[in-house]
Amino acid sequence: MGLIVQKFGGTSVANTERINYVAKIVTDTYKKGNNVVVVVSAQGDMTDDLIEKAAEINPSASKREMDMLLSTGEQISASLLAMAISAMDFPVVSLNAWQAGIVSDSNYSNARIKRIETERLNKELDKNNIIIVTGFQGINKYDDITTLGRGGSDTSAVALAAALKADLCQIYTDVDGVYTADPRKVKTAKKLKEISYDDMLELATLGAQVLQNRSVELAKKYHVNLEVVSSFENKEGTKVKEAETVEKMLITGVAKDDKVARISVVGLEDVPGVAFRLFSLLGQKNVNVDIILQSIGRNNTKDITFTVGLDKLEEAMDVLHKAYPSTEISYNDNVSKVSIVGSGMQSNAGVAAKMFEALYSAGINIKMISTSEIKISVLIDKKDTDKAVEYIHDAFIR
Amino acid sequence: MGLIVQKFGGTSVANTERINYVAKIVTDTYKKGNNVVVVVSAQGDMTDDLIEKAAEINPSASKREMDMLLSTGEQISASLLAMAISAMDFPVVSLNAWQAGIVSDSNYSNARIKRIETERLNKELDKNNIIIVTGFQGINKYDDITTLGRGGSDTSAVALAAALKADLCQIYTDVDGVYTADPRKVKTAKKLKEISYDDMLELATLGAQVLQNRSVELAKKYHVNLEVVSSFENKEGTKVKEAETVEKMLITGVAKDDKVARISVVGLEDVPGVAFRLFSLLGQKNVNVDIILQSIGRNNTKDITFTVGLDKLEEAMDVLHKAYPSTEISYNDNVSKVSIVGSGMQSNAGVAAKMFEALYSAGINIKMISTSEIKISVLIDKKDTDKAVEYIHDAFIR
Repeated sequence: MGLIVQKFGGTSVANTERINYVAKIVTDTYKKGNNVVVVVSAQGDMTDDLIEKAAEINPSASKREMDMLLSTGEQISASLLAMAISAMDFPVVSLNAWQAGIVSDSNYSNARIKRIETERLNKELDKNNIIIVTGFQGINKYDDITTLGRGGSDTSAVALAAALKADLCQIYTDVDGVYTADPRKVKTAKKLKEISYDDMLELATLGAQVLQNRSVELAKKYHVNLEVVSSFENKEGTKVKEAETVEKMLITGVAKDDKVARISVVGLEDVPGVAFRLFSLLGQKNVNVDIILQSIGRNNTKDITFTVGLDKLEEAMDVLHKAYPSTEISYNDNVSKVSIVGSGMQSNAGVAAKMFEALYSAGINIKMISTSEIKISVLIDKKDTDKAVEYIHDAFIR
Repeated sequence: MGLIVQKFGGTSVANTERINYVAKIVTDTYKKGNNVVVVVSAQGDMTDDLIEKAAEINPSASKREMDMLLSTGEQISASLLAMAISAMDFPVVSLNAWQAGIVSDSNYSNARIKRIETERLNKELDKNNIIIVTGFQGINKYDDITTLGRGGSDTSAVALAAALKADLCQIYTDVDGVYTADPRKVKTAKKLKEISYDDMLELATLGAQVLQNRSVELAKKYHVNLEVVSSFENKEGTKVKEAETVEKMLITGVAKDDKVARISVVGLEDVPGVAFRLFSLLGQKNVNVDIILQSIGRNNTKDITFTVGLDKLEEAMDVLHKAYPSTEISYNDNVSKVSIVGSGMQSNAGVAAKMFEALYSAGINIKMISTSEIKISVLIDKKDTDKAVEYIHDAFIR
């Protein structure tokens, strides 16, 4: 008995059969006496098809018009799901972002939700309607349509749950929960019954594609009870909650990211402000830098090495070559990052040592190391990625 | 130099090539120093595809959800056309019904525009933007999306032209104007340079599929300068204007409608109120009745014969059989209606006689006759339709 927000992604509403299956999940929840607000993404390849159509007409279309175009995808799946639920004789209404009062900033194609004006939503809940809301989109102050960026429907769901003070926000996906490692690669990977917001956030940021990290941030901020469940099988998922209430585990997951590259800038002058200049240049171009290592070079110089996303490598090299025309700059895109995450490690010495030992016993060389309070990342050769995950996983999780 | 509203239908924006062609027409108009507001329909078969998708999920989906679904079609073509125009380096913005302030009543799937709140439109015109507006749709007082019914984009265009006091409203279609008869059937059919609102209205109602009749009504009411032009060829179209300013012709067109059926109810009691009861029963079921003929039957009875649209035949027969279980009711769906239209005939005697003479010389039997101030319709055997149109056309138009 309460208010439950349920989010279904594109594969979950890809065709009539799937839509009917989702309608069954939603109405089963409603039948138990709950109010239900559902957030849907666009059907399967709809968004990609629209992007292709646009590219044919204008490869550099404005983001404002792209958002106007793409937002239709969710409106289609929202109305179709409402029809399916109505065919089962349940009261239902579909609302787009404007009708649902989802106000965002004006950063077209990658907007952030600023607030949700819940008047209409509450009116529909008062009528005991099941509400289907278009995910992934908002309305800005100019009354224009914005989209929240890929995976933004997770954020829509969490934001709605926060605004409506929902008792639970369920994210239905094509996996059945959060695992200690990728279950397709690591046979001994375990499904977590629960995980803290912080650990989930690190895992999401480090490449586990279960939840969009902005949605986890939001859930943590507004204390939203999150749950990751399978939209294909009816079994228990993973609950994401406050750290204090989560059963302590030393580490909760091993993640890998093989879409990274390392860049080295060698022989920079050893004076104050050198690092600042370098990284602010990259920041201006929206190049996010991850692990950073600075070492003393020869003859009063220093070397700076760091990692960037593989998709930003070219742009980063370009910026650097222009800014430092006579400096030696090299890169290696044959690397990957493997990380362990766990709030438990804060109070446990020896976690890093145990991780490095696992890598040593696998004969894997560590190129860079980065640590935070709840995670440790290492950069290794790309070919060793899966082996590293397996050895580390075995060392920590039995 | 002025404000021009241009409307393009579904075939005109069916693919990238067509969209680019439309963008050319629009920007050419803009380059001449005009402000341009464009109204677009959904691409080609988009609407039919969406209807099919919905039918698979819920064959009796609510009209409210159908409108939510179908309105995406125009939003897609509006944003794509904006992208095409922007690729040609012209300032442009696409607006959906809500953004454009198109307020309708709540008659989902067949709504009427109540007013247009032009604030946003004027703001964009002040910025010298070309505006692309989604046709066929509005927003009701509940902030829900409505559609105006098939062909409703014509109405959107005329309503926008009226609200913005546009100098001209151009309806681009796949024909190049209004003809005195269907040019595919009658070789001597002539394109009209101009036609009065009233004649156009009769022609639209009688089956000439050039303009939606509601749009002509609206144009007449608000004195909108209408023009029907080809979206495929660059030649002069047909202007629709006030009767006084139109060159006088005896008749302006010959139209046919072969989607009609005749129903006869035989031997009704000859007392007051009989016709009233019969037609109010049909009215309640939204069955529109056209030509009506009442004759005295045997033994103090009367017979009532009338025509209905072929698509309403079954429903009408059903209603009548239930209401008059012991009365003889028959129908004939092998008939068609041929009409002549012309404001000129008001002041000209002998027009009807001339039409009947033409039919006589073609050896065609007249089953029913109906006349108004500016039109004469006859019901004949369906097989004679094209021949009748040809003979009548030849008698009046040389």
